[in-house]
Amino acid sequence: MSHNSFGHLFRVTTWGESHGPAIGCVVDGCPSRIAITAEEIQKDLDRRRPGQSKFTTQRREPDQISILSGVFEDPETGDQVTTGTSIGLMIQNTDQRSKDYGDIAERYRPGHADYTYDEKYGIRDYRGGGRSSARETAMRVAAGAIARKVVPDIIIRGALVQMGPHKINRANWDWNEVNNNPFFCPDKEAASLWADYLEDIRKKGSSIGAVIEVVASNVPAGLGAPIYAKLDQDLASAMMSINAVKGVEIGNGFEAACLTGEENADEMRMGPDGKPVFGSNNAGGVLGGISSGEDVVVRFAVKPTSSILTPRRSITRSGEEVDVMTKGRHDPCVGIRAIPVGEAMMACVLADHTLLHRAQQGG
Amino acid sequence: MSHNSFGHLFRVTTWGESHGPAIGCVVDGCPSRIAITAEEIQKDLDRRRPGQSKFTTQRREPDQISILSGVFEDPETGDQVTTGTSIGLMIQNTDQRSKDYGDIAERYRPGHADYTYDEKYGIRDYRGGGRSSARETAMRVAAGAIARKVVPDIIIRGALVQMGPHKINRANWDWNEVNNNPFFCPDKEAASLWADYLEDIRKKGSSIGAVIEVVASNVPAGLGAPIYAKLDQDLASAMMSINAVKGVEIGNGFEAACLTGEENADEMRMGPDGKPVFGSNNAGGVLGGISSGEDVVVRFAVKPTSSILTPRRSITRSGEEVDVMTKGRHDPCVGIRAIPVGEAMMACVLADHTLLHRAQQGG
Amino acid sequence: MSHNSFGHLFRVTTWGESHGPAIGCVVDGCPSRIAITAEEIQKDLDRRRPGQSKFTTQRREPDQISILSGVFEDPETGDQVTTGTSIGLMIQNTDQRSKDYGDIAERYRPGHADYTYDEKYGIRDYRGGGRSSARETAMRVAAGAIARKVVPDIIIRGALVQMGPHKINRANWDWNEVNNNPFFCPDKEAASLWADYLEDIRKKGSSIGAVIEVVASNVPAGLGAPIYAKLDQDLASAMMSINAVKGVEIGNGFEAACLTGEENADEMRMGPDGKPVFGSNNAGGVLGGISSGEDVVVRFAVKPTSSILTPRRSITRSGEEVDVMTKGRHDPCVGIRAIPVGEAMMACVLADHTLLHRAQQGG
Amino acid sequence: MSHNSFGHLFRVTTWGESHGPAIGCVVDGCPSRIAITAEEIQKDLDRRRPGQSKFTTQRREPDQISILSGVFEDPETGDQVTTGTSIGLMIQNTDQRSKDYGDIAERYRPGHADYTYDEKYGIRDYRGGGRSSARETAMRVAAGAIARKVVPDIIIRGALVQMGPHKINRANWDWNEVNNNPFFCPDKEAASLWADYLEDIRKKGSSIGAVIEVVASNVPAGLGAPIYAKLDQDLASAMMSINAVKGVEIGNGFEAACLTGEENADEMRMGPDGKPVFGSNNAGGVLGGISSGEDVVVRFAVKPTSSILTPRRSITRSGEEVDVMTKGRHDPCVGIRAIPVGEAMMACVLADHTLLHRAQQGG
Repeated sequence: MSHNSFGHLFRVTTWGESHGPAIGCVVDGCPSRIAITAEEIQKDLDRRRPGQSKFTTQRREPDQISILSGVFEDPETGDQVTTGTSIGLMIQNTDQRSKDYGDIAERYRPGHADYTYDEKYGIRDYRGGGRSSARETAMRVAAGAIARKVVPDIIIRGALVQMGPHKINRANWDWNEVNNNPFFCPDKEAASLWADYLEDIRKKGSSIGAVIEVVASNVPAGLGAPIYAKLDQDLASAMMSINAVKGVEIGNGFEAACLTGEENADEMRMGPDGKPVFGSNNAGGVLGGISSGEDVVVRFAVKPTSSILTPRRSITRSGEEVDVMTKGRHDPCVGIRAIPVGEAMMACVLADHTLLHRAQQGG
Repeated sequence: MSHNSFGHLFRVTTWGESHGPAIGCVVDGCPSRIAITAEEIQKDLDRRRPGQSKFTTQRREPDQISILSGVFEDPETGDQVTTGTSIGLMIQNTDQRSKDYGDIAERYRPGHADYTYDEKYGIRDYRGGGRSSARETAMRVAAGAIARKVVPDIIIRGALVQMGPHKINRANWDWNEVNNNPFFCPDKEAASLWADYLEDIRKKGSSIGAVIEVVASNVPAGLGAPIYAKLDQDLASAMMSINAVKGVEIGNGFEAACLTGEENADEMRMGPDGKPVFGSNNAGGVLGGISSGEDVVVRFAVKPTSSILTPRRSITRSGEEVDVMTKGRHDPCVGIRAIPVGEAMMACVLADHTLLHRAQQGG
Repeated sequence: MSHNSFGHLFRVTTWGESHGPAIGCVVDGCPSRIAITAEEIQKDLDRRRPGQSKFTTQRREPDQISILSGVFEDPETGDQVTTGTSIGLMIQNTDQRSKDYGDIAERYRPGHADYTYDEKYGIRDYRGGGRSSARETAMRVAAGAIARKVVPDIIIRGALVQMGPHKINRANWDWNEVNNNPFFCPDKEAASLWADYLEDIRKKGSSIGAVIEVVASNVPAGLGAPIYAKLDQDLASAMMSINAVKGVEIGNGFEAACLTGEENADEMRMGPDGKPVFGSNNAGGVLGGISSGEDVVVRFAVKPTSSILTPRRSITRSGEEVDVMTKGRHDPCVGIRAIPVGEAMMACVLADHTLLHRAQQGG
Repeated sequence: MSHNSFGHLFRVTTWGESHGPAIGCVVDGCPSRIAITAEEIQKDLDRRRPGQSKFTTQRREPDQISILSGVFEDPETGDQVTTGTSIGLMIQNTDQRSKDYGDIAERYRPGHADYTYDEKYGIRDYRGGGRSSARETAMRVAAGAIARKVVPDIIIRGALVQMGPHKINRANWDWNEVNNNPFFCPDKEAASLWADYLEDIRKKGSSIGAVIEVVASNVPAGLGAPIYAKLDQDLASAMMSINAVKGVEIGNGFEAACLTGEENADEMRMGPDGKPVFGSNNAGGVLGGISSGEDVVVRFAVKPTSSILTPRRSITRSGEEVDVMTKGRHDPCVGIRAIPVGEAMMACVLADHTLLHRAQQGG
């Protein structure tokens, strides 16, 4: 049992605080002879990196990844490959501005984990959110880059499908649009509207929530387990472990509550290649905890960051009533940067279940 | 790693198929000297038992629980108490009507796990859903009855808050109403409307989805962990592992995506007893993965059962295209019986995290 | 984390006390479509069963195993096979003579776990040793019978190689002799001498320790892991978890401490079939935690049972000084019945590592 | 399940190869507000460091530890204390002489894990033993230093009790002598003889095995678990996971096999302070898997290093027969440096079981 690990066989253990000397993780259980370079991991990290548009925090986090163990040059191919041993990854923290943290140390920011950490541990590293900083998610993205290599045939893509009350028009969905706007939005029209909407939020020093959808295509049928360690259960666990996530759904999710059995059933027919095809995918690619071969679809809701310029009422560590305003460089919509993180968690869960599935196949 | 276990320290492992000789579970990690009787467990099981109204399946499942190990008479109190060793629980299956399963063996019921089990395992016990039957949840309820004893001060209650498209009016919420109607509905007016609505569904041999809310009150601050094994993460995992659940949310959940940081923040003030009080509970009692002392609130969506009288298109094991209709005694709204299960999972997660929390407290 | 489970992927969870209604276990992670019957399991159990000679306890334990879940008739072969779901196994306890346990309840038997259980839990089921009874090992043997089916090519055999101070002559080793004497002794001459020696011990109401050796042949190279979850580490853990075991060694074990590097090295040459052959097997088939293809050899020491007729000084639960003598039907050399248990644990560890190994092989 | 982690709740995950850029570990589950500094960890590491006498390898490994996360200044005491989050530790590798590894890459050194790694993974980092290097044990010592702080009242000490065939005289045991000789030997006379004996071994470029004893005093009764996760089982697992260990025993260990029940029983009496006292400690402080309050005593056998100057017959990766001689700076008796490692593993196991024990105590 670990408080800082995720996964059954493809297992990621993270460490590090926002303003400590470094953050890192250990990836255990990765099969050997998988080609991987720091550059490939860096590419995924760069998608998550802040400061890429005015809509994400202006902190400078170059987030330069180092692979410290678990790889070696393949004598046959010359590629750097995994050796099957634990992979140590690290990012040095560089943007640790020296400043006075006196206020944060004492004041509990509403919506943050300040109070609960103090209640649990009696102490906390308050600098920049410490362990609770979204900075920890950089290591998820790094581990996810390796996970993708474990399941190279699976395509994992994420998109922002709702910003505040504004949903995309699904008829406009175009994966190619996702990288054409600063929101990872698949609907060109929505992206355009969101730009104005979010600029307004940003200027006010406010923040807004969002919904992210992550889709895995080309997932083989048979991943998962029937009762616990269900594929959808592990996905729910993975997504809910991301900072600020308050809800997770698979396939049509909460919409399923409104449907009749007739409406909700995904009918089956034989496809031209002798494989079953489903007429719909309300199930989101998971039946009874096991993948069906359809796209695995998960959505999660991210709350607005609690770091806002408008003062909120709160208390101090010693019980004094105060107003708290969070100055600094914050994301007006943290959901944007959660997309690479959601993709990474999907990759980790699918890599993990791929290994579990192999374990149970006859020799 | 187990495919049939749940929990870190308070750990439940279930076994058994719908139409096998028995179902059971092992509860590991329960502290010693906790008074528990089969009657107490039975009481919780009876709330989940089918056949209690016309709105749940008419199968007869007396579900008589036996405690086979892990308890002993306390020499001081004379009570039957836990001994700290593994608790074996079992229910004999009695209502196994002998019948011809030939059809079910071959035909994949849409929305069920028939196809995915076959893809994964190459074989399945198709009688009554086998391992995927909701019957497995009886053991969750049994384990949950023990879990409640581990956290006796915490009050755990569940309610049906939405049936199909019909939500309750939260202004009418009255916990006392929950046991006055066959739906565990806290809104008397809604319950009355639902009776007609569901009767119509039932008569048509159709089915409908639902949303369940489970609330834990009197939870101490400090339960949970910051990154993985977050309290809300484990609750999401727990609820998503229940059959037919497609979505989970904590506190205001998906609604948080629509809010600004100002709206979503739960402000704090000092209470009359020198303890912090929160002005709202959008967070659902969990901040940064750790309980805040506020009510822990989780909701989950249950899809309509796929066992309906209207034929749906499907295929057989051998690839033939067929129409499938599921005769038999089924629940028109399986969400109803999921309430005691959701409560039990909440109890298990809270018991588990209570033990984890104790572990980390100084000697 | 479970206090009553063993194994990583092939995972066994046991429950039950000596004099409760039943004992049982759950086997999780077993691949599907493995043919297994209760009769096959029973055969292994019968080798462990007491009362087969005058040298084992005369208790009647028919130990009739039931498979309660996880198996189904294969539609193609007609065999009963595993389905990939959790396998529930149970043995009803039948020989529970009603008697007065008052003495045992109060008096701490030296060498038994009476005192430590009370210190830990504040209560214990004292009837027949309760959870600490060797009876629990019946479920290990049952699980081991399934594990053997997971690794059908591996031959696992155990033998008693030392009784009290009397070791076998390894030059006489003959596996065929093992079933020709009541001691599982591979040395015919030693078995003959032991018969007289143990008869004397038995008549005096005394007891004696022993050393067991378990050998697995035809183990493929590559099972295990480099640092933790080493194959030899998991074997040490498995054997040390058996009641009364006080020491474990792999290959030449403690003898290695006396050797020089030149003496201890197992030299390698190419065999006629193009595979490496080792000139010796001091390593016991494990190098760096990973199997080498040589026989995996483990030995463990079993202490004499503390249940003897000669009174020993002890104390009561309430702190009174007393003399304790253990009447009843006990094994003069419990090591004898530990052999099928040691074999079973070897089978479980090898099945477990076989699954782990598969998980890490490329798709 | 992790291949690179140890412990249930106090959980250590290590990473790094001998000649990679760094080695490190993550300590998860450590309670908060435990004062710890890098200097304290360094002190333990320095005891293990090579090059301290002519009897250990002359490699330069300054082994400078860094604490990268999980600690913070206590606002009340000013001490650096744990925060309850994961503790990242790292040592930069500095003594990586650039040299030609061509030979090692191809030739399987007998007794080393070269062949088995290649069989398992198809690739290995052969530089200096890669992941299998004893260098990994530095991180165990570092984690052990933290573990000791979790159980500050327990005294953990190790000693070399046998070098090759030469055992100490237990009558001469003096813990104060342990730090007066380069062998951690508690018997002054034996240490003197060993100096000559080992000098001879060293000069010949040979190596010799050893036996280490680790003793934990002041362990409270009640640590451990009855069936699996037994205290002695976890100690066996811990010690057997150390490089080159081939045998583990608890208390009188294999000697118990030679004793009668009368001889082996540890009789109990009431002590002057109203607590039980044991007349002997054959059990090594563990009864039924649970600590008795007596000293916990574990011994383990370390084989001679296989790196010797005398050529041994072996094969190459491509199946050619060769003679292998291992030049370089090696320990003539690796058992010596295993003592701080054994102590650290004892500390980790006891810290882990202390946390587990707390978890099961009533609120």
